[in-house]
Amino acid sequence: MATSKCIDWQFSGNKAAKEAAAASLGTYTSAIYALCDPNGKPILPPRSESPETSHTAEKAVVKAVICGTGNAYAPSIGLPVAKSAVAEYLNLSLPKKLKADDVFMTVGCKQAIELAVDILAKPKANVLLPRPGFPWDVVRSIYKNLEVRNYDFIPQKDFEIDLDSVRALADENTFAIFIINPHNPNGNTYSEAHLKQVAELAKELGIMVVSDEVYRWTVFGNNPFVPMGKFSSIVPVVTLGSISKGWNVPGWRTGWLALHDLNGVFRHTKILQSAREFLEINSKPPTVIQAAIPTILEKTPKEFFKKRGSFLKDRVDFGYSKLKHIPSLTCYMKPEACTFLWTKLDISFFVDIEDDQDFCNKLAKEKNLVVLPGIAFGQKNWLRHSIDMEASILEDAFERLKSFCESHSIEAKA
Amino acid sequence: MATSKCIDWQFSGNKAAKEAAAASLGTYTSAIYALCDPNGKPILPPRSESPETSHTAEKAVVKAVICGTGNAYAPSIGLPVAKSAVAEYLNLSLPKKLKADDVFMTVGCKQAIELAVDILAKPKANVLLPRPGFPWDVVRSIYKNLEVRNYDFIPQKDFEIDLDSVRALADENTFAIFIINPHNPNGNTYSEAHLKQVAELAKELGIMVVSDEVYRWTVFGNNPFVPMGKFSSIVPVVTLGSISKGWNVPGWRTGWLALHDLNGVFRHTKILQSAREFLEINSKPPTVIQAAIPTILEKTPKEFFKKRGSFLKDRVDFGYSKLKHIPSLTCYMKPEACTFLWTKLDISFFVDIEDDQDFCNKLAKEKNLVVLPGIAFGQKNWLRHSIDMEASILEDAFERLKSFCESHSIEAKA
Repeated sequence: MATSKCIDWQFSGNKAAKEAAAASLGTYTSAIYALCDPNGKPILPPRSESPETSHTAEKAVVKAVICGTGNAYAPSIGLPVAKSAVAEYLNLSLPKKLKADDVFMTVGCKQAIELAVDILAKPKANVLLPRPGFPWDVVRSIYKNLEVRNYDFIPQKDFEIDLDSVRALADENTFAIFIINPHNPNGNTYSEAHLKQVAELAKELGIMVVSDEVYRWTVFGNNPFVPMGKFSSIVPVVTLGSISKGWNVPGWRTGWLALHDLNGVFRHTKILQSAREFLEINSKPPTVIQAAIPTILEKTPKEFFKKRGSFLKDRVDFGYSKLKHIPSLTCYMKPEACTFLWTKLDISFFVDIEDDQDFCNKLAKEKNLVVLPGIAFGQKNWLRHSIDMEASILEDAFERLKSFCESHSIEAKA
Repeated sequence: MATSKCIDWQFSGNKAAKEAAAASLGTYTSAIYALCDPNGKPILPPRSESPETSHTAEKAVVKAVICGTGNAYAPSIGLPVAKSAVAEYLNLSLPKKLKADDVFMTVGCKQAIELAVDILAKPKANVLLPRPGFPWDVVRSIYKNLEVRNYDFIPQKDFEIDLDSVRALADENTFAIFIINPHNPNGNTYSEAHLKQVAELAKELGIMVVSDEVYRWTVFGNNPFVPMGKFSSIVPVVTLGSISKGWNVPGWRTGWLALHDLNGVFRHTKILQSAREFLEINSKPPTVIQAAIPTILEKTPKEFFKKRGSFLKDRVDFGYSKLKHIPSLTCYMKPEACTFLWTKLDISFFVDIEDDQDFCNKLAKEKNLVVLPGIAFGQKNWLRHSIDMEASILEDAFERLKSFCESHSIEAKA
């Protein structure tokens, strides 16, 4: 032992990922789950579980495994049949059609976000990100030394984007606005008229729109999902997607980035070339899932999404009704998409809760219930509650939440 | 059209990946395949095909798909059952046992290499890489601005590492030596005595050894594979692996990095922490394959590897014997592992071939046969020939090669 301790080893861990890693949702989630008592009552939501996927998707992957069609390396930009299938699928709701060449296959929607950030990053540049928003956008921007500027929403107007805040933030070093539609965690879908406003504003500012549309298949409200690609005759648009959320298979790690070009702008500005170069030197999604993508996108029965939407709507209705009896939590809008409730936390109700992080830590310790703090999504003193559980489990979760809030309230301690 | 052309769009493609992408094997391979005539005779080797995998592996993945055990996100450092299974498997041939915590699951062996480079990169640092070697090591080092210093081999001594060249290259800014064992493209496996010499030298230099062992299951010569982890009582060792080559499933994108620590050096030097942070912000391997890893590693019958080894040995014997009739190509050692022949090209035999790249370009154009130029592996005027084909196809490939060499030879033109 003495021998090796005397050696002055010439290596040490690179700290470049430290700050970015601290901002990831995984870091927040793991820290809170770690506070739960594994020997106590069941930890909610149950971790590492996904709702069942469609049998069509399962069969498509099984077929690819058995036939060996996904065993070999795929080209770095994606398997041709997968690229074509994604283009054709997206084209169903687009006036300006994509070609297979406009689509790049990625390791889930996360690598699509990573790719969008990487191909756009440049010194002194800043990017407009939603607050609240998906932490991965922030994580990758931090890692690439991009300045993040957060635009806001108007909770009282069903969480529309505050376009004045966008205009106020942008300057000559802004290159893109990232939007999430349907929005996680707000839970709304943007109207066609609102998206057009976003496109017109982006054009005015000379920036592109990057739209994360991974939740497009979990829509159950009155407003239909409208793809941002519809406005690529106004402004260059990049859309990001994956089968993770719609088919409940984030573990299959397969997504895409699509370039909805405007008069060859993406070619002139070398965006296309940069995307190819970054994919050449980075991780690729599993070929075995890419091989199944055509069947998954084309053959999954509508019934599957209808059933899933109806399941989620029931849960949202239930959770939303339960929140009415918890005065410290305000839900501004009943979600019409995604799998969460997003509530504002009023700290003044409590005697011994400091903020959202403190709330979530104590809730995990005392009730074995995991709710994520708004700060993980960039917004202090809000909370994100998962509702994607069986009815009886969700009921249990809301009982624990109510009992926790009551036991810490000023009234209870008075 | 005029409208959008007037807009001064504030974005452009980032060129940071350009140089690294140009060095990737995919870039070289695609460029050469593109020279083949799709309407001519069959292009060899057939692209996007892999030899059959083991039924055990197929069944394990099918089970994970059907049971839904791999549908959810896995922790960023890997699925616990996969980490345990890799540790147990590697431990079968290690005196100092790994724990599951020492193993990190990655997107194939390529992300394991990426991780090794990322956690070690620091300003002014240099890394010792093999010449010839796997281009991905170079690609990721270029991207991370690491200075690459290439050590050599002794072809006349069955491609042992030239330890004098290693010693001559290392200085106070060297932090690691990367080795590949079994070596691609040399095709040899290192003896226990030679690996011990490498370990002793690394200790003397104060650097770690990173050993890419992805080809450990395709060994068919007289020398058995010896894992570098065996010498972690001398020097800190990182080993990299994946199921890609052993099971013929690179498209399943699942590999690992294992830290074989020496008295807690990896902890003191923050290597462990850095690995966790980088994995937190990067792509993850598919959970659905990770879930199958225990069965794949534990249950695949030895017969599968024996059959595969015997298949490869036959092909190598055949190719090696054919090379004896092509005087411009010299194979210094009949490979005892991997799936290639590695030959030195003697340009003086030809009337109109400039170098290895020119040889490969013309061979593809004239014969629809793809051989890779040594320059892709860092060594000019060598060639890498795949031998992983059915017998009749390989025979065809070598006939095309011979006929090409003859038709360009000085004698033929004289």
